[in-house]
Amino acid sequence: MNGQKRIRDYGIIIGKMKTGKRNAITDVSGVKVGHVTLNDGSIKTGVTAILPHEGNLFKEKVVAASHVINGFGKTAGTIQIEELGNIETPLILTNTLSVGIAHTALVEYMLKNNEDIGITTGTVNPVVCECNDGYLNGIRGMHVKKEHVFEALENTSEDFYEGGVGAGTGMSCYGLKGGIGTASRLIEIGNQTFTIGILVLANFGTKEDLTIKGIKAGKIIVEKEKDSMYEEDKGSIIMILATDIPMTHRQLKRICKRAGVGLSRTGSFWGNGSGDVVIGFTTANRIKHYEEAAVVNIKAFNENKINDVFRGAAEATEEAILNALICADTTKGRDGNIRHSLREYIDLIMKKGHRD
Amino acid sequence: MNGQKRIRDYGIIIGKMKTGKRNAITDVSGVKVGHVTLNDGSIKTGVTAILPHEGNLFKEKVVAASHVINGFGKTAGTIQIEELGNIETPLILTNTLSVGIAHTALVEYMLKNNEDIGITTGTVNPVVCECNDGYLNGIRGMHVKKEHVFEALENTSEDFYEGGVGAGTGMSCYGLKGGIGTASRLIEIGNQTFTIGILVLANFGTKEDLTIKGIKAGKIIVEKEKDSMYEEDKGSIIMILATDIPMTHRQLKRICKRAGVGLSRTGSFWGNGSGDVVIGFTTANRIKHYEEAAVVNIKAFNENKINDVFRGAAEATEEAILNALICADTTKGRDGNIRHSLREYIDLIMKKGHRD
Amino acid sequence: MNGQKRIRDYGIIIGKMKTGKRNAITDVSGVKVGHVTLNDGSIKTGVTAILPHEGNLFKEKVVAASHVINGFGKTAGTIQIEELGNIETPLILTNTLSVGIAHTALVEYMLKNNEDIGITTGTVNPVVCECNDGYLNGIRGMHVKKEHVFEALENTSEDFYEGGVGAGTGMSCYGLKGGIGTASRLIEIGNQTFTIGILVLANFGTKEDLTIKGIKAGKIIVEKEKDSMYEEDKGSIIMILATDIPMTHRQLKRICKRAGVGLSRTGSFWGNGSGDVVIGFTTANRIKHYEEAAVVNIKAFNENKINDVFRGAAEATEEAILNALICADTTKGRDGNIRHSLREYIDLIMKKGHRD
Amino acid sequence: MNGQKRIRDYGIIIGKMKTGKRNAITDVSGVKVGHVTLNDGSIKTGVTAILPHEGNLFKEKVVAASHVINGFGKTAGTIQIEELGNIETPLILTNTLSVGIAHTALVEYMLKNNEDIGITTGTVNPVVCECNDGYLNGIRGMHVKKEHVFEALENTSEDFYEGGVGAGTGMSCYGLKGGIGTASRLIEIGNQTFTIGILVLANFGTKEDLTIKGIKAGKIIVEKEKDSMYEEDKGSIIMILATDIPMTHRQLKRICKRAGVGLSRTGSFWGNGSGDVVIGFTTANRIKHYEEAAVVNIKAFNENKINDVFRGAAEATEEAILNALICADTTKGRDGNIRHSLREYIDLIMKKGHRD
Repeated sequence: MNGQKRIRDYGIIIGKMKTGKRNAITDVSGVKVGHVTLNDGSIKTGVTAILPHEGNLFKEKVVAASHVINGFGKTAGTIQIEELGNIETPLILTNTLSVGIAHTALVEYMLKNNEDIGITTGTVNPVVCECNDGYLNGIRGMHVKKEHVFEALENTSEDFYEGGVGAGTGMSCYGLKGGIGTASRLIEIGNQTFTIGILVLANFGTKEDLTIKGIKAGKIIVEKEKDSMYEEDKGSIIMILATDIPMTHRQLKRICKRAGVGLSRTGSFWGNGSGDVVIGFTTANRIKHYEEAAVVNIKAFNENKINDVFRGAAEATEEAILNALICADTTKGRDGNIRHSLREYIDLIMKKGHRD
Repeated sequence: MNGQKRIRDYGIIIGKMKTGKRNAITDVSGVKVGHVTLNDGSIKTGVTAILPHEGNLFKEKVVAASHVINGFGKTAGTIQIEELGNIETPLILTNTLSVGIAHTALVEYMLKNNEDIGITTGTVNPVVCECNDGYLNGIRGMHVKKEHVFEALENTSEDFYEGGVGAGTGMSCYGLKGGIGTASRLIEIGNQTFTIGILVLANFGTKEDLTIKGIKAGKIIVEKEKDSMYEEDKGSIIMILATDIPMTHRQLKRICKRAGVGLSRTGSFWGNGSGDVVIGFTTANRIKHYEEAAVVNIKAFNENKINDVFRGAAEATEEAILNALICADTTKGRDGNIRHSLREYIDLIMKKGHRD
Repeated sequence: MNGQKRIRDYGIIIGKMKTGKRNAITDVSGVKVGHVTLNDGSIKTGVTAILPHEGNLFKEKVVAASHVINGFGKTAGTIQIEELGNIETPLILTNTLSVGIAHTALVEYMLKNNEDIGITTGTVNPVVCECNDGYLNGIRGMHVKKEHVFEALENTSEDFYEGGVGAGTGMSCYGLKGGIGTASRLIEIGNQTFTIGILVLANFGTKEDLTIKGIKAGKIIVEKEKDSMYEEDKGSIIMILATDIPMTHRQLKRICKRAGVGLSRTGSFWGNGSGDVVIGFTTANRIKHYEEAAVVNIKAFNENKINDVFRGAAEATEEAILNALICADTTKGRDGNIRHSLREYIDLIMKKGHRD
Repeated sequence: MNGQKRIRDYGIIIGKMKTGKRNAITDVSGVKVGHVTLNDGSIKTGVTAILPHEGNLFKEKVVAASHVINGFGKTAGTIQIEELGNIETPLILTNTLSVGIAHTALVEYMLKNNEDIGITTGTVNPVVCECNDGYLNGIRGMHVKKEHVFEALENTSEDFYEGGVGAGTGMSCYGLKGGIGTASRLIEIGNQTFTIGILVLANFGTKEDLTIKGIKAGKIIVEKEKDSMYEEDKGSIIMILATDIPMTHRQLKRICKRAGVGLSRTGSFWGNGSGDVVIGFTTANRIKHYEEAAVVNIKAFNENKINDVFRGAAEATEEAILNALICADTTKGRDGNIRHSLREYIDLIMKKGHRD
């Protein structure tokens, strides 16, 4: 976004469904995203914050679910998401070793906005997701500070950058420069239009496996580079799914699983060393912290019609990953490690774009 | 029921919550239970059928959930219950080796009542639960026939017997005669009253572990009998939970888990060889097979108030197990194997009823 | 096999890993497969049996795991597989409404071969998997009988047919004729070679979604046929994974999950109405029913090296599905319903095989 | 320990199995526990560290499993424990809002001891568990600092205090003073003796529900105190299970589940607001971070003999909770809130100890 050239601008259209206005997670009304980018020599890291809605999240929680595709990861907060089916804080994305500081910062942010927490009511469940940016970032330096989390939260907006920004600053994907990507799909049912949006923090995959719309792009790159070094697939991907479709926790979890379809179509087989985690929420069902009624009305989706939502989740995830790649700039990080931008190869891939 | 003397009639009151009118799963309006008992020499088995409601279950499914406490069991149907969060057939309980025939019979029953199945719509998910009654029953004889399933379905009523009847005919529990037991609890919130009911097929436990309201009843029995033979805990228990509280699948699953609390308070540690399975449904949320609307209204329970429901599930399960024991008659089955009724020991237990 | 022309014979090579000798699940030593095909007018169904090894499976169980990708299915036996991490019977595949009869037949088969079951030891956990072949098969007729199961078990061999045979006789896949397919991959580590094999019962997908090695084959077919009727994705796929790699239950479960990668690469987004179930076993770790030792030695795989196994599972699943399609003959079933063979379109697809 | 009078010293013997020498988690050879207690006015909190073995945990991981009984909790690290079946750091227990700082401290501790992390190898998975001590502790003050975590790790020893110490300093249990408790059981099989140990951080339950060896102790206390204020059950309990029995991840997870049996026997029904989480590890199977072999030998337990281990886990958990209660001193915390010691009531309970 923000004028960046995205995968669709190269004529690469994923799937058959319509996108939302921004083709972004923020097409879901109320959702906002903010980055803080730390980019200074071997410091290549940052924070990305996602706000599910603009109100008080603790007082008005969103129905949510999580799904672990491969659990070599350190995401915090999923135990309670699964038990209670909701999220009550913004979501923070950062590097693996900064989960702790982001957790602390998110707690302080919530305490500041909710004087009842820990006094007249219980505690709060911070949701912090991570990938390991250690190839480019001097991750042992633990450069993320609480202020960066607060700043990312303040920076949240409907428009935001993709690629090597925020938590994506130091991430690698398919041996190229990875980072933040997003996409959305519209679900049209009768005369109603719903939106599903995905934001990924893409940091996984082996170069030769990269697949773009069925083209074995990674093989084309490897052949050109005579890049014989095989790098183990050991990154991770965080996939955040937002929707305005009314759903229960169980239904949302089913949708979250379909992010794995999009992921696998870009070439991943969900490698051993990867923390592939999906967290989804719907803005359409809110849960009041101080609900008094014994029985509350909620809306659920008719599962006879859910296939389009599944398809949308798969398509948007695939496209969001490609957006992360194509929007990221070539980056040189710690110890001279370099990740090249997909943009350096995209013309070649399009030209040679036969499937082998 | 039906005039049987139950555990409460011996002055043993489990917990502090009120029971429903019958203190049975059928206190949940619309729920019915029917037995067929096969009791002839070494044939000691049968079928118990549970109807969640009186309408067409396939066309109007009930929201449901399952929970496996220990999975050494062969219950069929839980994969779909967990995916879709509903039940669309009656529930059939029988012996382990008769799951297949009960499955077939339940399919035929559903086909007969739904001409669309397999032609203009999809198939159907039969729910069949089981325990191994092989100690008393010549289980290798596979004595249950399709007709017994049809008959149990026809026999369903709000009043039904407990103890060694239906699927419980040949079951053992804590080295005594086990079988079918039931209980219920009322949940009073504001000026609303809800009901939660449990039916168990109890076939688990080692004699010395039996605990009745904190009394180590099993030790008292073992001392009296000078019964030195230690029998491995290798049975199973099926726990069916019904409620009229409006709940989502996730909420129901949380309730189902609390059956494990009641179970453990009777002395079980959920033995290795036991298939301890809970299946729950709520009659308050129905799912139409041919739903046309994209979004449907459902009701959920306010989880801030769910503790009473948890407590009720735990209490009712504990009492249902004790009802199964106290209502069962001493039974001699295959190869002269005998299981005694708890009634032979209850006075002694009450008299010696100190805790050690 | 058996001289059938498979997807690889059309020059379509999936992935980069070597196949086993037969490129079949039976490349895993000891594994055998047998079919019974019922093909007579509107009777289009059957049974496929898989033997994990040739000894007494009840006495010498195999380490196993299951994974439910989408649970709109009726597979029996997974609760115990997950609890105990083993399989103790052959695996039977058939149509959805015949799970019961196959269950009964498998029980009888096990009783016949094990006189201790139900007398001096416990019961047995039959594994029965299914898909709904109701589009071509008069499934309400419940044409599978116990004898068909016994016969399939007797027919087991290292060589077997693919396509519309056995349980695959009436199955549909991507709007074409589906059925049984298989493939295998070799995992070479140091100087050791291991094998992973997959057998699928493919009965899922919408025609336009079919993707062959990145080519949108389904769109090519739909354009040619001017086939405007959109059929909902509502089938299922059973994926049986065998390996001789020593693994624990947890490791096997991780491998089973990667079948979902292969599945999604053929175009599926794991549709709502699909029972997408994976069951895997390893022949390398056996569990004795009458084990006496308190502690037993088992072998586990070094997870640092597991990525090749993941890749192999994904590749073999993708190829097995394509083999099911290409080996199946055009079939006319109940009510004149027809499913065409992929062979009718494969030349066109290869010719037009650009990605859009 | 350390001369504290424990529940057994009051003549209250839980179960029938023998305890280890210390009746503590540290009876499992190599396991050590250390506390830092912060007790100053309204600061009532702390840190407890558990070392699974004395070597380099990152280089030599322990096989591990987790089980969530009720997930209203914020424990970090379980996603990776479940995926990989191991633990590679010490376990840190603290208050809910200090999970972040403990996470950061544990990362720094691991970085200091492993120069390869984040440079030549991947990252590390910190395990941090928590309960909410906000009733007694000014939890919003976030008083735990990194130094407290380092100090607790240095303090680790085979002997340690129970009650209101370390992470237990501010915890409440059954409306009384809770905190740290421990117990162990010996598993004797043939001529081998194994040990299972439990450490709990007990912070859950409603006063009237407290049950001690079948006696409704809570009712006795409530009657005496004329304490009519009903407090919602909204705490949590962390249960850490250690054993020297060789087990796989799956087997350990089965054992972890039985902690729920012990928990429910003390009167809990696993309340809604409670984060009831079990984490278990075995010291008998180690996983080398830099393993080179493709196949490794591990030892598994014969599940035919696992019932004694289940029983031991249940017994030790029940006793550990009672030890936490009886060892804790009456404590006055923030805003004058008081939790009384069980010791104030134990004589009365023993005297009135009829079951109602």
